[in-house]
Amino acid sequence: MEIRQILEDIKNGRKSLEEAEKELKNLPYEDLGYAKLDHHRSLRSGFPETVFCQGKADEFLPQIYLSLFEKNGEVLGTRASAHQYELIKEQLPMAVYDPISGILKIEKEGKIRKGKVAVCTGGTADIPVAEEAAQTAEFFGCQVDRIYDVGVAGIHRLLSKREQICEANCVIAVAGMEGALGTVIAGLVENPVIAVPTSVGYGASFHGVSALLTMLNSCANGIATVNIDNGYGAGYLAAQMNRLACKE
Amino acid sequence: MEIRQILEDIKNGRKSLEEAEKELKNLPYEDLGYAKLDHHRSLRSGFPETVFCQGKADEFLPQIYLSLFEKNGEVLGTRASAHQYELIKEQLPMAVYDPISGILKIEKEGKIRKGKVAVCTGGTADIPVAEEAAQTAEFFGCQVDRIYDVGVAGIHRLLSKREQICEANCVIAVAGMEGALGTVIAGLVENPVIAVPTSVGYGASFHGVSALLTMLNSCANGIATVNIDNGYGAGYLAAQMNRLACKE
Amino acid sequence: MEIRQILEDIKNGRKSLEEAEKELKNLPYEDLGYAKLDHHRSLRSGFPETVFCQGKADEFLPQIYLSLFEKNGEVLGTRASAHQYELIKEQLPMAVYDPISGILKIEKEGKIRKGKVAVCTGGTADIPVAEEAAQTAEFFGCQVDRIYDVGVAGIHRLLSKREQICEANCVIAVAGMEGALGTVIAGLVENPVIAVPTSVGYGASFHGVSALLTMLNSCANGIATVNIDNGYGAGYLAAQMNRLACKE
Amino acid sequence: MEIRQILEDIKNGRKSLEEAEKELKNLPYEDLGYAKLDHHRSLRSGFPETVFCQGKADEFLPQIYLSLFEKNGEVLGTRASAHQYELIKEQLPMAVYDPISGILKIEKEGKIRKGKVAVCTGGTADIPVAEEAAQTAEFFGCQVDRIYDVGVAGIHRLLSKREQICEANCVIAVAGMEGALGTVIAGLVENPVIAVPTSVGYGASFHGVSALLTMLNSCANGIATVNIDNGYGAGYLAAQMNRLACKE
Amino acid sequence: MEIRQILEDIKNGRKSLEEAEKELKNLPYEDLGYAKLDHHRSLRSGFPETVFCQGKADEFLPQIYLSLFEKNGEVLGTRASAHQYELIKEQLPMAVYDPISGILKIEKEGKIRKGKVAVCTGGTADIPVAEEAAQTAEFFGCQVDRIYDVGVAGIHRLLSKREQICEANCVIAVAGMEGALGTVIAGLVENPVIAVPTSVGYGASFHGVSALLTMLNSCANGIATVNIDNGYGAGYLAAQMNRLACKE
Amino acid sequence: MEIRQILEDIKNGRKSLEEAEKELKNLPYEDLGYAKLDHHRSLRSGFPETVFCQGKADEFLPQIYLSLFEKNGEVLGTRASAHQYELIKEQLPMAVYDPISGILKIEKEGKIRKGKVAVCTGGTADIPVAEEAAQTAEFFGCQVDRIYDVGVAGIHRLLSKREQICEANCVIAVAGMEGALGTVIAGLVENPVIAVPTSVGYGASFHGVSALLTMLNSCANGIATVNIDNGYGAGYLAAQMNRLACKE
Amino acid sequence: MEIRQILEDIKNGRKSLEEAEKELKNLPYEDLGYAKLDHHRSLRSGFPETVFCQGKADEFLPQIYLSLFEKNGEVLGTRASAHQYELIKEQLPMAVYDPISGILKIEKEGKIRKGKVAVCTGGTADIPVAEEAAQTAEFFGCQVDRIYDVGVAGIHRLLSKREQICEANCVIAVAGMEGALGTVIAGLVENPVIAVPTSVGYGASFHGVSALLTMLNSCANGIATVNIDNGYGAGYLAAQMNRLACKE
Amino acid sequence: MEIRQILEDIKNGRKSLEEAEKELKNLPYEDLGYAKLDHHRSLRSGFPETVFCQGKADEFLPQIYLSLFEKNGEVLGTRASAHQYELIKEQLPMAVYDPISGILKIEKEGKIRKGKVAVCTGGTADIPVAEEAAQTAEFFGCQVDRIYDVGVAGIHRLLSKREQICEANCVIAVAGMEGALGTVIAGLVENPVIAVPTSVGYGASFHGVSALLTMLNSCANGIATVNIDNGYGAGYLAAQMNRLACKE
Repeated sequence: MEIRQILEDIKNGRKSLEEAEKELKNLPYEDLGYAKLDHHRSLRSGFPETVFCQGKADEFLPQIYLSLFEKNGEVLGTRASAHQYELIKEQLPMAVYDPISGILKIEKEGKIRKGKVAVCTGGTADIPVAEEAAQTAEFFGCQVDRIYDVGVAGIHRLLSKREQICEANCVIAVAGMEGALGTVIAGLVENPVIAVPTSVGYGASFHGVSALLTMLNSCANGIATVNIDNGYGAGYLAAQMNRLACKE
Repeated sequence: MEIRQILEDIKNGRKSLEEAEKELKNLPYEDLGYAKLDHHRSLRSGFPETVFCQGKADEFLPQIYLSLFEKNGEVLGTRASAHQYELIKEQLPMAVYDPISGILKIEKEGKIRKGKVAVCTGGTADIPVAEEAAQTAEFFGCQVDRIYDVGVAGIHRLLSKREQICEANCVIAVAGMEGALGTVIAGLVENPVIAVPTSVGYGASFHGVSALLTMLNSCANGIATVNIDNGYGAGYLAAQMNRLACKE
Repeated sequence: MEIRQILEDIKNGRKSLEEAEKELKNLPYEDLGYAKLDHHRSLRSGFPETVFCQGKADEFLPQIYLSLFEKNGEVLGTRASAHQYELIKEQLPMAVYDPISGILKIEKEGKIRKGKVAVCTGGTADIPVAEEAAQTAEFFGCQVDRIYDVGVAGIHRLLSKREQICEANCVIAVAGMEGALGTVIAGLVENPVIAVPTSVGYGASFHGVSALLTMLNSCANGIATVNIDNGYGAGYLAAQMNRLACKE
Repeated sequence: MEIRQILEDIKNGRKSLEEAEKELKNLPYEDLGYAKLDHHRSLRSGFPETVFCQGKADEFLPQIYLSLFEKNGEVLGTRASAHQYELIKEQLPMAVYDPISGILKIEKEGKIRKGKVAVCTGGTADIPVAEEAAQTAEFFGCQVDRIYDVGVAGIHRLLSKREQICEANCVIAVAGMEGALGTVIAGLVENPVIAVPTSVGYGASFHGVSALLTMLNSCANGIATVNIDNGYGAGYLAAQMNRLACKE
Repeated sequence: MEIRQILEDIKNGRKSLEEAEKELKNLPYEDLGYAKLDHHRSLRSGFPETVFCQGKADEFLPQIYLSLFEKNGEVLGTRASAHQYELIKEQLPMAVYDPISGILKIEKEGKIRKGKVAVCTGGTADIPVAEEAAQTAEFFGCQVDRIYDVGVAGIHRLLSKREQICEANCVIAVAGMEGALGTVIAGLVENPVIAVPTSVGYGASFHGVSALLTMLNSCANGIATVNIDNGYGAGYLAAQMNRLACKE
Repeated sequence: MEIRQILEDIKNGRKSLEEAEKELKNLPYEDLGYAKLDHHRSLRSGFPETVFCQGKADEFLPQIYLSLFEKNGEVLGTRASAHQYELIKEQLPMAVYDPISGILKIEKEGKIRKGKVAVCTGGTADIPVAEEAAQTAEFFGCQVDRIYDVGVAGIHRLLSKREQICEANCVIAVAGMEGALGTVIAGLVENPVIAVPTSVGYGASFHGVSALLTMLNSCANGIATVNIDNGYGAGYLAAQMNRLACKE
Repeated sequence: MEIRQILEDIKNGRKSLEEAEKELKNLPYEDLGYAKLDHHRSLRSGFPETVFCQGKADEFLPQIYLSLFEKNGEVLGTRASAHQYELIKEQLPMAVYDPISGILKIEKEGKIRKGKVAVCTGGTADIPVAEEAAQTAEFFGCQVDRIYDVGVAGIHRLLSKREQICEANCVIAVAGMEGALGTVIAGLVENPVIAVPTSVGYGASFHGVSALLTMLNSCANGIATVNIDNGYGAGYLAAQMNRLACKE
Repeated sequence: MEIRQILEDIKNGRKSLEEAEKELKNLPYEDLGYAKLDHHRSLRSGFPETVFCQGKADEFLPQIYLSLFEKNGEVLGTRASAHQYELIKEQLPMAVYDPISGILKIEKEGKIRKGKVAVCTGGTADIPVAEEAAQTAEFFGCQVDRIYDVGVAGIHRLLSKREQICEANCVIAVAGMEGALGTVIAGLVENPVIAVPTSVGYGASFHGVSALLTMLNSCANGIATVNIDNGYGAGYLAAQMNRLACKE
């Protein structure tokens, strides 16, 4: 049950004050004992709370999904395992799972997406992180343009997509190893670039540190960085920026 | 001489094709020998090229300022020393220098600023970096709200400014030491937060690494990070986001 | 053997120079009374010896538990596996095992707990470490107040528990990722905060290093740090501080 | 503004849905009473605000001292330079400066100190940090016992002071290089040990990192760590613990 | 589209200012001839594309091999698993797999190799990386001289092979642990040495970092370094250098 | 080929300038007598070659053991697995395996050991590394005194063994976590201390780095450090030192 | 006095065998007491020994220059200060000093340079290191093409120089900050790229570590890395490769 | 006044018991207030206490020298500045200062040195550290053989000194940059090698860390490592080992 709906129901007399107050009593947060779901989030941020599935105990995860589904009518979970999908499917059979990105979600039908976000990767190994970003941005209402495997060691591949990339309100650049993709893109476009280092690589890539440092030290303007492999964070930021561009 | 002006002058016959071509011949970049000024930047990005003054040789800096001033009618320089100000002032007496932020600029008069960016700091020692960010955003057309010394060790100071911060299209959170400011702010607002770690601190702050890691690992949504002490980068990003929000 | 005696023995020829020199070599250690020292420590610390189970060989662990149980009538073991519980249960069927914290203990019945310690966590993933701390403090005689999932990205959850936290003689703040919980709490309370970084996180959290640095660099007063995931150490310190407060 | 009132206003048409939603956004923060909170903290912490002088601008420092002196009748400043002492002395001639610790203070006369804190150092080079800790603890009302140059490479020096150290409510162990002092002391006493790593050393001491890691990894119970060279933080914590012990 | 044409079109009113500005935005990229560039690169590099097998999905790998085989008549894959060999063998039965180096290749028959490359290792544990280098260089047309287990702790072993090593156009020095092999070789030969650190070792070898630093800091002239365990990169570089030497 | 001969050959025209220059290139290496050098080393080191079993391939290990056994009548292998023991036992049934230290050896009967080496550990978890050291020293002819679990958090345990430790020609101090054992011992004895950091610990012990730094930064005199977990290296050094002391 | 000259003098009877032998007895190295000049180097490597001036004592440097000048008729010194230039100029007035690169040299007149090496930089701040590389390669007989300020954040600047870069036998890519230049170049050319990270940058560039990691982790083929700021090493390697290409 | 002398004077009646006791009352340590001189050291270790001058305050250093001179008849100080030499010379005019090593000492005349220690360096820049080691070993009674500038990049220089090095009871190998000297020497000699990394180098040498790691990871047997630039520690260890070899 969503907040706006509750308010409308009061206005229209479809709901008593007592009922509404009871439903809103958990507004600041709902205390599940082991967890405190922040239902107030969606009011503050405009985006509903999501679930970081990795490491969540089997006994708690379904309850969290159910509670969020009830409040928001949809749920986005990240870093979910196939096993967790099985768990959730029992309770919420409409849940959809993408094993590549680890996204486990129930999404409102007919959601309208507007504003464009481009998601680029240096190589094919960066795609899982890129998909986490892309599907997060889509969940939060963006159109996403996927432009994969355009790493800077073959610069013509990236340049041939230049015009397409320039049309986005925000570009997410996902790259491991030396991670230079973001810098070259930021030199080509006018809108912000969110750089996501990935843990792809070996040896002195130090599980993504090399790419992270590359991105932080970019000599280009207009590039921001998130944590290694943090596709979700990039997708969320992109949705925020895209929303700024789409506001009327 | 700005590009748009050249094109208009051709259209209006105030300028011959030969003259215009000569003026535009350096459009992709102007080769100063030791440097290649990227005049095409302003077409691609909408913002003119700027100058990172630190370490620039005395014999080259004035020429760079002059060349950029001629093309764009204004120049923004960062990390300038008092000595560099003296150098530039001789050639461009209207140059303005702020010793706290190190900003050395010539700005077009009557620039209209629209859209709000908030710049917050954890402590007073973070102000030089915050000012670099604030003045960069202002140069690129934003209104800036300065909210300084609201570190999380006295959380009431930050909370009392909550409504003001929530109004910005983008918030820049500048903090050293443990750098937690960005996380708390990102939990309060709906728009993107750009976190700038500063090298303020001692011992295990490792010249800003502690604050940098805090920001990269933020448990809040909607937070992006730039390099340690990179106020300029944050200001540039904020101006890009603010521009998205102000587009009509 | 005292110096005067040695000197007299030399003078009287009862002792050779070589003998005297050898005796003087032992002089600073002679009067330490090792046995007394050992006994004394056990008396003073006031807390019985505990067992770090992780890595202890199967053939030795039961013997260690039996020996401590015989001496103290109770045993606290940390980082125990389910397999180790099986081993101990055979010998000491009253042993109790908590798989979340890894605490494997036999505790005296009717233990009176006095003085309050608060244990807070940033997220639900920090609970195993928090429970190690909480149960250790309880074993050593504290009342423990658990306040979990109050991370600073949703600061209202923490603020709503402020009064409860302020009542404790000592607060344990357990957090991974960016680890800012301790700083915010230390700004709210008058008593010491023990910060425990956890290895929760990914990428640039570097298995708890990010949280550790945050805590060491806290801009708040009254915050001390222990090793990553060291719930036991925090619980022990809290019990020491609580004992100071409860002394009559 | 409470939820029930908002709901009634909607029902009665006194409030639009948009207004109601905006008010609900502020809900978790509405009743915090910031001013009260601030006042409350200052009351509870029981210790007056102090000044970290290092890096404070000449134009601001005297004003800060004057303001705090007016409010509290005393001021404690740390990491002050001789130059800063000159500045303050002009305004507050009773100010006292200790060049070794960098403490610059005005202290109330006749302050009664109770409860004992012991401050130990490994070598003579650790004394500046130890004095910062000792004088901070004294300023906040502790009696301090200084036991310097008792590093573990000549263990008899430390052992000969054992009884004196055991009498303290809290022991501060200050050491650089390998930093093992805290561990040995924690094995001798019943009360908490606060370990302060110092940047004393060279080569692989990495400006205090070696000592810091030693202290975090201590195999002793009852030892907490603060930032490298953070004598003030240790003194503050010691004063908090000592206050717990001295409460009646 | 050239600048002169754009300017004329403006003058003649055939083009609006907006259109012109947009075209100028594309100007520096317009004449790159991406397709040509791509083709050109493939022609110039002179070496066919290769496959980094590790992490490639089962459904894609055979297709990649088939496609490259069709184009080039041969395929070099690195870091292949035995399982991947089984997959490829089904489609391309002539594929050859070396489990030590992980090389999985189909090579043109009768390839003529010219110019000599020497591959040296410090120990036997470095051989897998050395073989990746050696077989890569062979695939790209070099004769390879393998000189293994000549680490500097028994310097006579290396010195006894000096003349043989001196004959190579390029020497690849593969070593883990302290990684000093490259330095000693570079002091003996006149041609370039490519140093490959390996992750062989334990403790403070930090998975190859120790060897990497040794190589980067070599006090010898004529030594270049590649990533830890990057035998392929060293083999490729050696083939480039050897080709320079063999050009006629 | 000696210089004088080369010069005479030039003078007499028996040798061209080019030939002479080539021969002079080899000059500094010509007279090393590699075979002799090797033989000489083996004679001088006085200790037979040993085997680092970890990672050695099953097909090679038995051959290595057989070859060394034939040459020396005994073999010392370190870091052997139980599986490797099975392999060797088939060929050399008298082989003895110690699963704790991983030592797999065949030792000459009736070996006379002289001179004393003490091996101390901080805790029981350090024993595997200590045994590798102890058994290596024994294999190379030392008497070894094992003094385990005497960590500095209970300093009386170590002090009670002081006289025994002082009798050794060399002391090996094995410790993980904070690794302070070596410093305290070096302050008590007159002979060299070899400190072995172990990877025992968790969190900020960084797999032995904390203990390693402690040992390198020891404020005691007479302490040398080897790699993390390198019991063999410590045992070898101890045997060298002990041999110096036992020479007649 | 050069070796070839000695041999010719013997052949021509201008020098006795005794004289020649005496002169050659110092061949492998000349012992200056404090330093051992390796005159044999030029025979082995084909390039004369050079001088790393930084840190060399005033009393020794002129003697080293004189000795090398006598042997080789030219001297290359790197990292020289203006003060050192004054010292050398007194003895060798023909010495030439370049304050930007720190090169202090005496070069044979009329040296023929053949084969082309390209030296590229990302920014203008990288020029000192680039000049050290360029002048070293020139000293060792290469023609050098300087292509500066073509960093990847404005990729059109680099692309416009593509054909020129492709003509070189070897490309040196000098870059600080994120250091991505080498990767993009290696994707464009057929010959080896030597990447030189510079310490240009701030914050998380960690004095060149970021650029170093970028280069080591390059996803391009044919790229080798040298130490941070090691222009000399890159120039030397380039000269070796160029020599391979120019051999007849 | 030395301990042995005191004992003899008692025996011979030249001194009363009272006088002797007074003189010995400080035997365990002498408390100077700010420092606790450990006079018992010389009994335990056979070597008198020494002074680490760096950072010692001007008001304390002369007193420390005087006190140690009185007890031992000689003093060894390390890392002394020229200014400290001036201070000491006033009180103890026979003090001798070596500005290269920073050794400031008063040494007993006619000291007999026996047993040989070899001190080798990789380059001339390592000599200050080597001299600290050499003069320390000499002070403690060793003959020292200096073999400088024999780095492994010109291996023939080292090999030509092989026999001389093999004669030492212990070899100290001092090297910066890649630090491989110790490994090659340990492969040549039978006695222990003490490796001293120096902070010589730049870039990725990380102030000696590269050399330190090389030494810790040495693939040679019989090599122990001390802290970066710790010449004193190496000299002390060498003297201990040499003493073992010279004992009768």
